[in-house]
Amino acid sequence: MRMYDIIKKKRDGGELSAEEIRFFIAGVTDGSIPDYQISALCMAIYFRGMSVRETCDLTFAVRDSGDKVDFSAISGIRVDKHSTGGVGDKTSLVVAPIVASYGVKVAKMSGRGLGHTGGTIDKLESIEGFRTTLSEEEFISQVNEIGMAIVGQSREFAPADKKLYALRDVTATVDSMPLIASSIMGKKLAADDDCIVLDVKTGSGSFMKTVENSTRLARLMVDIGKNAGKKMVALITDMDRPLGNAIGNSLEVIEAVETLQGRGPKDLTEVCLTLAGYMLSLAGMGTPEEGKLLAQKAIDSGKALEMLRLTVERQGGDVKLIDDPSLFKRAKLLHDVISPAAGYIVKVDTEAYGLASLALGAGRNTAEDPIDYSAGIILKKKTGDFVRKGEVLATLYTNDAASLAGAEEKLLAATLFGDEPPADEPLIYDVVG
Amino acid sequence: MRMYDIIKKKRDGGELSAEEIRFFIAGVTDGSIPDYQISALCMAIYFRGMSVRETCDLTFAVRDSGDKVDFSAISGIRVDKHSTGGVGDKTSLVVAPIVASYGVKVAKMSGRGLGHTGGTIDKLESIEGFRTTLSEEEFISQVNEIGMAIVGQSREFAPADKKLYALRDVTATVDSMPLIASSIMGKKLAADDDCIVLDVKTGSGSFMKTVENSTRLARLMVDIGKNAGKKMVALITDMDRPLGNAIGNSLEVIEAVETLQGRGPKDLTEVCLTLAGYMLSLAGMGTPEEGKLLAQKAIDSGKALEMLRLTVERQGGDVKLIDDPSLFKRAKLLHDVISPAAGYIVKVDTEAYGLASLALGAGRNTAEDPIDYSAGIILKKKTGDFVRKGEVLATLYTNDAASLAGAEEKLLAATLFGDEPPADEPLIYDVVG
Repeated sequence: MRMYDIIKKKRDGGELSAEEIRFFIAGVTDGSIPDYQISALCMAIYFRGMSVRETCDLTFAVRDSGDKVDFSAISGIRVDKHSTGGVGDKTSLVVAPIVASYGVKVAKMSGRGLGHTGGTIDKLESIEGFRTTLSEEEFISQVNEIGMAIVGQSREFAPADKKLYALRDVTATVDSMPLIASSIMGKKLAADDDCIVLDVKTGSGSFMKTVENSTRLARLMVDIGKNAGKKMVALITDMDRPLGNAIGNSLEVIEAVETLQGRGPKDLTEVCLTLAGYMLSLAGMGTPEEGKLLAQKAIDSGKALEMLRLTVERQGGDVKLIDDPSLFKRAKLLHDVISPAAGYIVKVDTEAYGLASLALGAGRNTAEDPIDYSAGIILKKKTGDFVRKGEVLATLYTNDAASLAGAEEKLLAATLFGDEPPADEPLIYDVVG
Repeated sequence: MRMYDIIKKKRDGGELSAEEIRFFIAGVTDGSIPDYQISALCMAIYFRGMSVRETCDLTFAVRDSGDKVDFSAISGIRVDKHSTGGVGDKTSLVVAPIVASYGVKVAKMSGRGLGHTGGTIDKLESIEGFRTTLSEEEFISQVNEIGMAIVGQSREFAPADKKLYALRDVTATVDSMPLIASSIMGKKLAADDDCIVLDVKTGSGSFMKTVENSTRLARLMVDIGKNAGKKMVALITDMDRPLGNAIGNSLEVIEAVETLQGRGPKDLTEVCLTLAGYMLSLAGMGTPEEGKLLAQKAIDSGKALEMLRLTVERQGGDVKLIDDPSLFKRAKLLHDVISPAAGYIVKVDTEAYGLASLALGAGRNTAEDPIDYSAGIILKKKTGDFVRKGEVLATLYTNDAASLAGAEEKLLAATLFGDEPPADEPLIYDVVG
């Protein structure tokens, strides 16, 4: 088999066989296929696409390129939720404890933030003492004993994806549906869950900017997961504005705790209840609607918050911060962004909001950058709100005075005012099952 | 400027600016742009194409990537002919002396053969003593004094093309009209001619298999040449069968001499007279038809043959071989290929004929392979001929007995017989000016 022939076949619109795809991914993993051939194939895939069958084979080859996790020692049904990434997306911190409070197992391996999107692991590390690295034994016993655990990805999952993504990132071949789907699902399937709820974000803060594309991606990923024997559902949720009001690590943990206390922002609460409802439903606890009612009940009863507290305690974190989030170390500088005009906020560039938070210290440009856990933004006004001139739009949190002017400018430039309120956009666009 | 943005722009169907194209080729030349980005852009160009303006800019950037020749010390009008490569194509050896015999200057820098196509320099080197390397001074004085000279490309013309082609060759991005045109013309324009006649081959022995594609390529190359201030014309000529009857280096020189003696094969003679007619016409000697009559006259008078003899003498070659081509050293083994059936030859795979000749020793698979100048094939029957069972189709010439069976098999497999004569195909399909 020759890589040249594989590139030419795809270039000419052919369908690659499972064997050809495995040959390709094996060569990516062991370095025997040179980068220039890999990038040429990625560009050909960009233009020609892939069938569902090819995309499944690509995903499975990516999954099989490295370590896999064995969760068979975990008793009960294992459910995970995976988001394609957004701004202010702290849903994992809310839905995992809700679901685990019903005895459904959440053995979660999460990522770190990069660019304008945050990562669950960074958020958890803003809790003093919280350990995001556990041994496999510790991890499994914790899930078995209390119902959930959240750790970083310490092992080398899907190394082929790491190599492929690095190349796609510099050759303008990221935006390809089968390559995106196989990258996300290749890593996801290396974990050993029974049910997966995908939260596919759509809009200006997501890397899928249109509902149509988000829905196509969701459909593809659900099909891949089902082909791998998983129970799957995907929700297409709004990321045309930040989710909730808090952006930044400890600020988001605080908001997650408030949501578990039943006093979270309406949009975040609604998305979390719906996601948790589908997770419970996939795990066999009735319809999604019944699951949603159960989720609400877990908040009302305090059991979900108690589950988060238990998880923090078990993983070494300071539970006083959960009991009283006002104890989180606050940033030294708080700066109100004042509205320069009166009018409705008709549209925001959510990615720019994420980048403003990054500039304040909450994120990283490269994987090695340090993070200021207390930095970020609290939004006071969101899309649809009427704002008077001189009113506070948002408060910036930082320890880096030099970053304030730039972040304020970014945020203002990313906020579009108008005389009429914008049309209502749904929080949840579609469900793909 | 970032290569990433250039790839993305082309991927999305944009038109690259001259500056972006120069940045790209400069980075190819100095190695600052990594191979994986070059191949990704080539694949994007494969799918998106390039405008004539982009293709011109690409060609000029390729031309300017290395040495250029200064022919200003040559008096008179300088005309060249360039073929896209074929099997049995010895036209340069015929048309250059015809044209030079009228005082039009032919300062020719030719290439070597690779794969199934031959090269003028290899053919000339089959003449004992012939020097294909001259100093620039020798070269220019010879052209000024006798009217023509033919040398190999000793200097580094268009190094960007060398790099680009090597990458395209392994990433399935060779077959792209703007990349082909800029590769050919980038090298061609590094020489300093006033007029160029392109011989764009079409058919099974050419890398353009259809007349439509050959005509598109011809149009593009003529436009590029005119943009560079050259007088240009392109002929689309048949390569669906070998040109003439001889394939292989000394065999082709013998046939070229016979053609200059007025007793060459009809197809070769016709193509040579037409090409020479256009060369003379571009140089200002009347219409192409008038030029063709002049070309015929140069053969009839023996002046063209005398010009070849003079060139061989001046470049150190053994003129006795021109005076009596039967003195060429003959291959030790001659083998007749016998027709296994009766019928008309309706179609041949010309590339396979070229590969059969290569197998006999006449060509090279890699640039370093040695050549057997006496090896090759003399065709006794060609497309359209009726053949009786047991008649000789061709005679194979080689010094390598082990190669005979394979070459015979290749040749027979490449020859299609039928009960009806095939439709007549033109020798010259079109002229693009």
